Amino acid sequence: MPEIRNILFVMYDQLRHDYMSCAGHPTMRTPNFDRLAAKGVRFTQAYVQSPVCGASRMSYYTGRYVGSHGAAWNGYPLKVGEATMGDHLRKLGMDSWLLGKTHMTPDTEGMARLGLTRDSVIGARVAECGFDLWVREDGLNPEGPDGFYYATPSPYNEYLKSLGYPGENPWHDNANAGVDEDGSVASGWLMKNARKGANVKEEHSETPWLTDRCLDFLASPQAAERPWLAHLSYIKPHWPYIAPEPYASMYGPQDVVPANRTEAEREDPQPVYGAFMNNLIGKAFSRDEVRSEVVPAYMGLIAQCDDQFGRLLDHLESTGRMEDTMIVLTADHGDYMGDHWMGEKDLFHDCSVRVPLIIYDPRQSAGSTRGTTCDALVESIDLTATFIEAAGGEVPEHVVEGRSLMPFLRGDTPAEWRDVAISEYDYSCSVMAGKLGVAPKDAVLFMIFDGRWKMMHAEGGFRPMLFDTLNDPKELDDRGDDPACAETRARLMERLSAWSRRVSQRTTISSDQIIARRGKARSKGVYLGVYDENDLTPELLVPITGAAKGDFR
Amino acid sequence: MPEIRNILFVMYDQLRHDYMSCAGHPTMRTPNFDRLAAKGVRFTQAYVQSPVCGASRMSYYTGRYVGSHGAAWNGYPLKVGEATMGDHLRKLGMDSWLLGKTHMTPDTEGMARLGLTRDSVIGARVAECGFDLWVREDGLNPEGPDGFYYATPSPYNEYLKSLGYPGENPWHDNANAGVDEDGSVASGWLMKNARKGANVKEEHSETPWLTDRCLDFLASPQAAERPWLAHLSYIKPHWPYIAPEPYASMYGPQDVVPANRTEAEREDPQPVYGAFMNNLIGKAFSRDEVRSEVVPAYMGLIAQCDDQFGRLLDHLESTGRMEDTMIVLTADHGDYMGDHWMGEKDLFHDCSVRVPLIIYDPRQSAGSTRGTTCDALVESIDLTATFIEAAGGEVPEHVVEGRSLMPFLRGDTPAEWRDVAISEYDYSCSVMAGKLGVAPKDAVLFMIFDGRWKMMHAEGGFRPMLFDTLNDPKELDDRGDDPACAETRARLMERLSAWSRRVSQRTTISSDQIIARRGKARSKGVYLGVYDENDLTPELLVPITGAAKGDFR
Repeated sequence: MPEIRNILFVMYDQLRHDYMSCAGHPTMRTPNFDRLAAKGVRFTQAYVQSPVCGASRMSYYTGRYVGSHGAAWNGYPLKVGEATMGDHLRKLGMDSWLLGKTHMTPDTEGMARLGLTRDSVIGARVAECGFDLWVREDGLNPEGPDGFYYATPSPYNEYLKSLGYPGENPWHDNANAGVDEDGSVASGWLMKNARKGANVKEEHSETPWLTDRCLDFLASPQAAERPWLAHLSYIKPHWPYIAPEPYASMYGPQDVVPANRTEAEREDPQPVYGAFMNNLIGKAFSRDEVRSEVVPAYMGLIAQCDDQFGRLLDHLESTGRMEDTMIVLTADHGDYMGDHWMGEKDLFHDCSVRVPLIIYDPRQSAGSTRGTTCDALVESIDLTATFIEAAGGEVPEHVVEGRSLMPFLRGDTPAEWRDVAISEYDYSCSVMAGKLGVAPKDAVLFMIFDGRWKMMHAEGGFRPMLFDTLNDPKELDDRGDDPACAETRARLMERLSAWSRRVSQRTTISSDQIIARRGKARSKGVYLGVYDENDLTPELLVPITGAAKGDFR
Repeated sequence: MPEIRNILFVMYDQLRHDYMSCAGHPTMRTPNFDRLAAKGVRFTQAYVQSPVCGASRMSYYTGRYVGSHGAAWNGYPLKVGEATMGDHLRKLGMDSWLLGKTHMTPDTEGMARLGLTRDSVIGARVAECGFDLWVREDGLNPEGPDGFYYATPSPYNEYLKSLGYPGENPWHDNANAGVDEDGSVASGWLMKNARKGANVKEEHSETPWLTDRCLDFLASPQAAERPWLAHLSYIKPHWPYIAPEPYASMYGPQDVVPANRTEAEREDPQPVYGAFMNNLIGKAFSRDEVRSEVVPAYMGLIAQCDDQFGRLLDHLESTGRMEDTMIVLTADHGDYMGDHWMGEKDLFHDCSVRVPLIIYDPRQSAGSTRGTTCDALVESIDLTATFIEAAGGEVPEHVVEGRSLMPFLRGDTPAEWRDVAISEYDYSCSVMAGKLGVAPKDAVLFMIFDGRWKMMHAEGGFRPMLFDTLNDPKELDDRGDDPACAETRARLMERLSAWSRRVSQRTTISSDQIIARRGKARSKGVYLGVYDENDLTPELLVPITGAAKGDFR
C-alpha cells in the first residue's frame, strides 16, 4: 500500500500561475508540469501570503501569515523563535533538507541574545529557517559599484568556476549574459539581450545544476536512511531574463500573449498602484519591445524548468520513489510581465499573487482526485499544515495558521473552509514609500479575496482597490471608489479587521491545553469567591485546615 | 547634578488606582505613596494592557501589547525570543534584578527547540523574562487535593519554616490564615476570616519580608558595582485577603466606601459581563458581608504596603540613593471589590484596568513637575520605553510598542501622543468561555478608550459595552446597544481595527534601517527595469561588462 515517506517540495521563483499548458496557456508548453497535474490535484485558486520572495517564503516555511512572523520583505530577518516546517517535521521523524533558495536572512541580533551560533546544529537550523542544508543557492549574485548584493559565496558560481568558466562572476558573465558580436559579455541585466542565448552550456546552467544536486541527494545515504522533505527551490524563471539554448530560441514574439492592460487603468490609478506603475520597472514593461524580448526568454526559462522537472519525474519513477513520495509544485509569487502596466510582482493582481500549485499524493486515498482541479481558496501557509499531516502529525493550530489540504486530495470538502484569502505587502523599503510620503509603519497593503471580490486595503489614508472577478476576471476595472460598491467594501473591510484581530501570537499553548485548564485552580487550592465552609466541599476543605494549632503572632 | 543611575520599579499586585489618599480615597491613608507623589508625577489615566496578572506583567516587561507577545493569560508561556526590559537595559549597561513576583511561565518547548537550559546564564534569563533573580517569590503557595498550585518551592515559605513556623505550608497556615477560638487554622481562603489578624508576626509577613530582601539588595556589592533596575514586586494587597495586626484592625466597616453598582447593571448585561458577574466570585462580592469583611482587610494590606514603602524611602533618603534612583510605583491591575457586582479583575471597568502610577525622576529636569498629576492616556507598556530612555538608550520602536513618559516628567507634552488606550483580555481559559460556548480563539475581549468613551469589543458575536465617562464617570450606564451611540461605536471600532492592523512583529529591522535600504539594490548590481545601456549610468555599467571575452556555449 503506497504511503508517504518523503515529500519533494518544488518551488519555482516568479512562475506565473497561468504559464503552464495545464492551466490553459495558449502557447506555453509544459508537458512535465502537466504530467504531475495528471497524477495529482491542481489548485486553481492558490494565493501567496505576500507577492515578494522573502515574505512569501517565510510564510510558506512557517505556515503563518506575514503579519504573524514579521519578516515582511526581502532581507527582513525572520525573528528567532519562529517555528518552521523543519521544526515541525523533525519532531515527527522527518528530516528537512534545503536544495536551492530560501531568501532567509537570519536574526543575528536575536541569535546573539540567545547565545546561538551557526556552528551548532541548532544555530545553523535557526539561521536557515529550520532546514538542514544540502546546498543553499539563493540564485542571485549581482555585483555593483558597492560590491556584491549578497555577502555569502554562491555555490553555483563556484561550480562554474570549477568547470573553467573565467572571471570572478560567471553567474553573471555566462549563465546570465549572452555574447555580443565581438565576443564580449552581453549582460542579461539589459533586457534587450533577453533573447540572446546565455553564454553557458545548457547542462551547466542554473536549472540543470540544481536538478543534478537533487539527483545527488536522492542517491545519498541521507535520503535512504530517514524520511525526508526536500525543498527543491529553483531561482528560475526569475530575472535576469535570459535562457541558454535551445530554450533561448524556443519561443518568439509570435508566442507572446497580449498584455492584459487598458488605457483606463492609467487614468487616476489608486495612488500606491500608480506609484508602482510609474516606477522604472512598470515603465519598462509598458514598452512593447521589452515584452517581446522578455516574455519569450521567460517562456524559455519555464520550458527548461519543465524539462528538468521531467528528468526528476523519470528518475523518481524508475527508482520507485513515486510510490512513497508526495510531490508539490508551486511558486513564491508570479510576474506582471507588463500586465496592468507593471513589471515584477509587489501588488495583488492575479498574475502576481496567484501561483501554480499541484500536489501529487502517492496513496490510494488520493486515487479519485488524480488529474482533477480544485477551486477552493488555498493559501501558501496551507502547505506546512499539509506536510505535517503527511508526516503523520497533528497540525498545531496555535502555531500554524494554514490548514491541511489533505481533505481535498481525498476528494472531500471540509465542512468549514476559509471564506477569504489574505495577502500582505510591506513596501516600506521601496522608494515608492518615500515618494508617497508614507511612514514605514504605514507602508503596508492587504489583499482580501472572497472568491469573487478582491479588495486591496492600503494603510496611510489611500483609497482601496476593488475588483469584481466574476464580471471582470481580468481585473481591469477598479471599483475602489465606485459608490455602488460601498457595501461590498465595508463588508470586506470588516472581514479584514476580524482577521487582523485574530489570535496569532498565542503560540505556546494550544486550544486543547487551554480547555483542559478550565476550572482546575480549585483542586490546587485556589479558592476564590469562598465566604465560609459552606462554599467548599469537604475534600477541598481538608488542605486548608492546617496541621498545627497555636498562636504564632 | 543628579542623574539616573538606578531604577526602583515597584509593583503591587491588585492595587486599585483609587485606594491611595493622594488619589482621593476618603478613608484610605497612604502617607508614603503620597510622599512619592509629592516628589514625582502621578499619572491619573494609566491603563494596563490586560486586567490579569500574567498578561499584564508580560506587557510591562516586554513593552508590547498582549496580542503582540501572546502570553495572554496566567501561565501562558512567554514565547522564546521576545525581548524584555532586561534585554534592552543590559545592552545599555544596566542590570535588571527581580525581587518578588513576575508570574512568568517559561516557554520550555521553545527553549528546548533552541537548546536553551536554565543552567546557563542566557537560559536562566529567558526563563525569567529577562531578569536576573535576586529572589523570585510569586507570592502564592496554595495546595489542594491535586497538590500545590505551583510546582516550584516558595522562598518565603522556606523563610517562615527557618524561623520555626510549623507545618509544610506556613504561607497558608500562618501568613494567610488567622486563628480560631480553639487555636486551629482559620484559613484566609474563607473570606469570613478576612478581618482576623494573620497568624504571623508582622515583621515576618510577606510585605516586610520582601522589603527586607530589597534592603539586602540595596546594601549588596551587586547594587554598588553597576547601575541597576530592581523590580520590587509585591504580592499584596492581592488575595487571600487577610492582614497581620495592627493592619487587620486598622480599618473597619465604617471605612468601606459603598459599592459602585446599580440594580440596572444586572438587567440584561452584556453576555460576557453577565457571565463574569454571575460566577462564584461576582456573586460572593455582591454580598454585603463579604465586602464588609474583605474591604477592611484589603485596606489593611495596602496600609502595610504603604508603611513598608516608607521604610524604603527612608532608607533611600538616608543613603543618598534618592539622588540617583528613579522610583516607579504601580500595579498590574486593580480589584473590583464588589463594584459592578464583580470580584477580582478580568474586565475593563476602571477599578480593574486602571492602575496607580507614580514616577519620581531625581533629576533637576523634572523639577517643575514634582507633586503634579498628568492626565495623558498612559499604558503600562510605556514603562519599558521610559526605562530605556532613563538608561540613556533610544527606544527601539520596532520592538517596544510603548512610548517613553520622560517628556511628561519634564513638563512637556509630546506633539503627537496616543489618542486611545487599548487593553485586551483572553478568557479562553475560564469556565465562562465554556458556559458561553465560545471557541478558545474567540474568547477575547478588547478595550478601547479615547479619554471619554470606553468601549469593550467582544469577539464571538456578542454586543459591545460602551461607557461615556464624561457623563457617567462611574461607568454604570452601558450604552453598548444604545442606537444613539452607533456612530461612536463605529468610530471606536474603526480605530480598534486600525490598531489591530499595526505592524507588531517586524521586530528585526527598525524604521531607520528600512529607510536606509531604499534604492540601494542598484549600487549592488540589481538592475531592474533596464532595457539597454541608456538606462544605466557609466559607473553602473562597468560591473556588468564582464572581464572575459569568448563564447562558452
